[in-house]
Amino acid sequence: MKNISLSPNGVEYILPTEEESKEERETLEKITAEQKSSGRKIVAVQGMGFVGCVMAAVVADAEDNRGKPLYFVHGQQRASARSYWKVPVINSGEPPVKSSDKEVPEIFKSTVSDKKTFRATWLNYAFEVADIVVVDIQLDATKPAFGEAERGYCDLSAFRDGMRNLGKHIQPHCLILVETTVPPGTCEKVVKPIIEEEFMKRGIDIKTNPPLIAHSYERVMPGSNYVKSIRNFWRVFSGVNEKSKKLARKFLNGVLDTEDYPLTELDNTNASEMAKVMENSYRATNIALTLEWAKFAEQIGVDIFKVREAIRQRKGTHDNLLRPSLGVGGYCLTKDPVLANWSMGAIFDLEGSLDVAINSVNINDTMPLHTIELIKQEYPDLRDLNIAVLGVSYLEELGDTRHSPSETLVRFLNESWAIVKAHDPYVDFWAEMENVPVLDDIREAVKNADVVVFAVGHNEYRNYQPQKIVEMAGKKPLIVDCSNFVDDVKLNEYKKIGCKVKALGKGTV
Amino acid sequence: MKNISLSPNGVEYILPTEEESKEERETLEKITAEQKSSGRKIVAVQGMGFVGCVMAAVVADAEDNRGKPLYFVHGQQRASARSYWKVPVINSGEPPVKSSDKEVPEIFKSTVSDKKTFRATWLNYAFEVADIVVVDIQLDATKPAFGEAERGYCDLSAFRDGMRNLGKHIQPHCLILVETTVPPGTCEKVVKPIIEEEFMKRGIDIKTNPPLIAHSYERVMPGSNYVKSIRNFWRVFSGVNEKSKKLARKFLNGVLDTEDYPLTELDNTNASEMAKVMENSYRATNIALTLEWAKFAEQIGVDIFKVREAIRQRKGTHDNLLRPSLGVGGYCLTKDPVLANWSMGAIFDLEGSLDVAINSVNINDTMPLHTIELIKQEYPDLRDLNIAVLGVSYLEELGDTRHSPSETLVRFLNESWAIVKAHDPYVDFWAEMENVPVLDDIREAVKNADVVVFAVGHNEYRNYQPQKIVEMAGKKPLIVDCSNFVDDVKLNEYKKIGCKVKALGKGTV
Repeated sequence: MKNISLSPNGVEYILPTEEESKEERETLEKITAEQKSSGRKIVAVQGMGFVGCVMAAVVADAEDNRGKPLYFVHGQQRASARSYWKVPVINSGEPPVKSSDKEVPEIFKSTVSDKKTFRATWLNYAFEVADIVVVDIQLDATKPAFGEAERGYCDLSAFRDGMRNLGKHIQPHCLILVETTVPPGTCEKVVKPIIEEEFMKRGIDIKTNPPLIAHSYERVMPGSNYVKSIRNFWRVFSGVNEKSKKLARKFLNGVLDTEDYPLTELDNTNASEMAKVMENSYRATNIALTLEWAKFAEQIGVDIFKVREAIRQRKGTHDNLLRPSLGVGGYCLTKDPVLANWSMGAIFDLEGSLDVAINSVNINDTMPLHTIELIKQEYPDLRDLNIAVLGVSYLEELGDTRHSPSETLVRFLNESWAIVKAHDPYVDFWAEMENVPVLDDIREAVKNADVVVFAVGHNEYRNYQPQKIVEMAGKKPLIVDCSNFVDDVKLNEYKKIGCKVKALGKGTV
Repeated sequence: MKNISLSPNGVEYILPTEEESKEERETLEKITAEQKSSGRKIVAVQGMGFVGCVMAAVVADAEDNRGKPLYFVHGQQRASARSYWKVPVINSGEPPVKSSDKEVPEIFKSTVSDKKTFRATWLNYAFEVADIVVVDIQLDATKPAFGEAERGYCDLSAFRDGMRNLGKHIQPHCLILVETTVPPGTCEKVVKPIIEEEFMKRGIDIKTNPPLIAHSYERVMPGSNYVKSIRNFWRVFSGVNEKSKKLARKFLNGVLDTEDYPLTELDNTNASEMAKVMENSYRATNIALTLEWAKFAEQIGVDIFKVREAIRQRKGTHDNLLRPSLGVGGYCLTKDPVLANWSMGAIFDLEGSLDVAINSVNINDTMPLHTIELIKQEYPDLRDLNIAVLGVSYLEELGDTRHSPSETLVRFLNESWAIVKAHDPYVDFWAEMENVPVLDDIREAVKNADVVVFAVGHNEYRNYQPQKIVEMAGKKPLIVDCSNFVDDVKLNEYKKIGCKVKALGKGTV
């Protein structure tokens, strides 16, 4: 049923009819006029994804010195079967994202229901009335082959469409603030020409009305400080011309806590775009380094986690060193180096490549295979082996499964004909692995397991005592620890019970 | 004249005769007996290099709660033409190293001349009477080809000889504390077997007297906090058995400020050895990442130094990001990844390699060629071009030229028949490049220069105004800035005067 949009809670929403769109338009006109007359600027946020919806709420929550709201926000979300449900959900005062941060539901209730400064809509009309459009469209990198990030590219077509749509609708004075992580060069060489083209089609003189485009990347961490990671966090920005910079500065000063977290203005949008992908490349590279050394450590009786702590004692110079794990997942570290590397040739027509960052992505992407090697040391043939994979999200205490290393792990285990049962307290449905049920009950996942993999470091798993695991399994499974759960004490307990243990990065096991 | 040892100050010392060695032995016997009778432990430090000599002074300076010296230190230095001069220099109360740290001459005067708890000698007898031998022998990696660190290896023969010498002389109860940065596995698989072999030859039962060997790596920074970087800094250690660990712990607690900088004990010496080479690999990798992005930034109008500051705002997670420069030099970052990578196969007989770290060394080693590319953008033919290279040490405000990136720069410039004049306020004589005079007077170096390279970020250079440079050159040289000296203001001044500027990592130039 194509005219239905199904929310994650299982509620079905019928996509709006033309008649409803007409009514919605009238509603928007009325609201916008009211809000403008009360002196508020109109902001449209394009894309109600992980970043956009909370950013929209933060903007809608911004107040002047006297506690008066500064902005009215239209949260714009296309009426697609995949995402339309977010519009009615937001307008009911609920967030369209799950989070362990209590502030998330609070800020949606406060801005949507109480202050009424935030409302979602599916209409482009939101862009027509906006003084500022904040762009939070998703943009992915594609890696055509596993472990070959150097061949990765970025399909900008949907992003271009989104920009063209803005060019058709926005007023000349409207600032486009791109928050999406984009390949360096995108604002100057992709967004600007498109907006100029559309402006010219509309008869707007781009000499007197050059498009106003700025870039300020988000640093959202969708955990327990979700809202704070937007509002109370450092921001970097720039614009394609002085006026864009000025408008962006004013807007960011209005909505963020820039007193405690000062803004950084860079010379141009290339710089701001580069800063984002470079900071994630820095993380990705640090992890890749650690992963290589973890494998070395394992083989020479060294616990890499202890070595890491020893190194991190050098505060200020060595404490960013990251820890090894099953692999690297999520939306940022897996793709940002690819965006940058692709941009060099595709956007700037330059030779060369960013080998350190790209090789790091390859090391990180293929790391879950190492855990399979650990299992194979005990069970060379994985066929019909019962394997419980505990944790399928990409990070501890999070329900986000995008590019999760558990996905690679389970995929390759399945290809070897192992029988995988997955569990995750934060994940009900594994969108990327629809055929792998994520069991609710850990006992079901571990029951009869020959191998138990502590894949993700959720705290819940940390607390399971060895005896309990054996009880649930009904046998003595091989324990594979990717999360530094098995310390010296637990190791002894497992040994006493008769369980073998393999631990990633721990040769002392 | 082989029996002469020439100090850097130009003083000639005649190598000791047999007669003098006999007298020295008697002196040592007497001093040792006196010191032992006053309750002090005897420490011998093997190797009076950059680390050993200051470490020896720090040990000699250690006192108990009542201000009584804990140790008497024999600083042992072989009577070679290259290094013997250190013995008489130290015994005159002077440090054998130059440093900007005032505490260095102070601690030599205090321990050698005043407290008389530190004395240098060339005799192995120092090891015979020692309760603890601290090993500070230099150990280098060899890279057989430029830019191919993966082929690098470590020639352990001199180190093995040093250990064998200890095995022949030390008493069974003596702790060998290795401070030298060694390939992981060295204490267990190199030092221990050698000492055991020598003990057995001497009829010592290694069952009841297993060799006592510990590893605790130094983190010396020979700048303005030279002494503090030994005494007031975090230390990691381990030992080949429990007794070694215990003795090492006691010794380090005695000589270092472990109250403010707590010790980290690791499970085994492999771990401690790995921690050192991994922490330097972490730095080397961070720089390599930055260097690759600096080249990208240059080409798209981005100032990487500003981008770096933007990223480093994320305190605690991103502030270790290092800055780009002419290249990476010094004794540690250039070789430690090689020691680790070589150790995998050569010491542990493992497959695999540490690609992230090794590729980083290659990127760092070859980086000075990029500066030559910058010059070539203006002067495609370097023949007979007058080039002033300002700075030849490997780091700001330091006189250490070991593996300096300026060395690579000058070597390749010379090969292209450029005429190079070098200057460095901290370097009188360039040991690695004997044929390149380091001029005292910067005016002489810059006079008539077609190109002025700010190679090293010494503060002295930062303060030169554009007008002054042109005056000294007597023409308008191309300015090549590898040190982030040319900011927006200076750039404008250079432009006004008519000087072209190329700046590493700065596309805004």
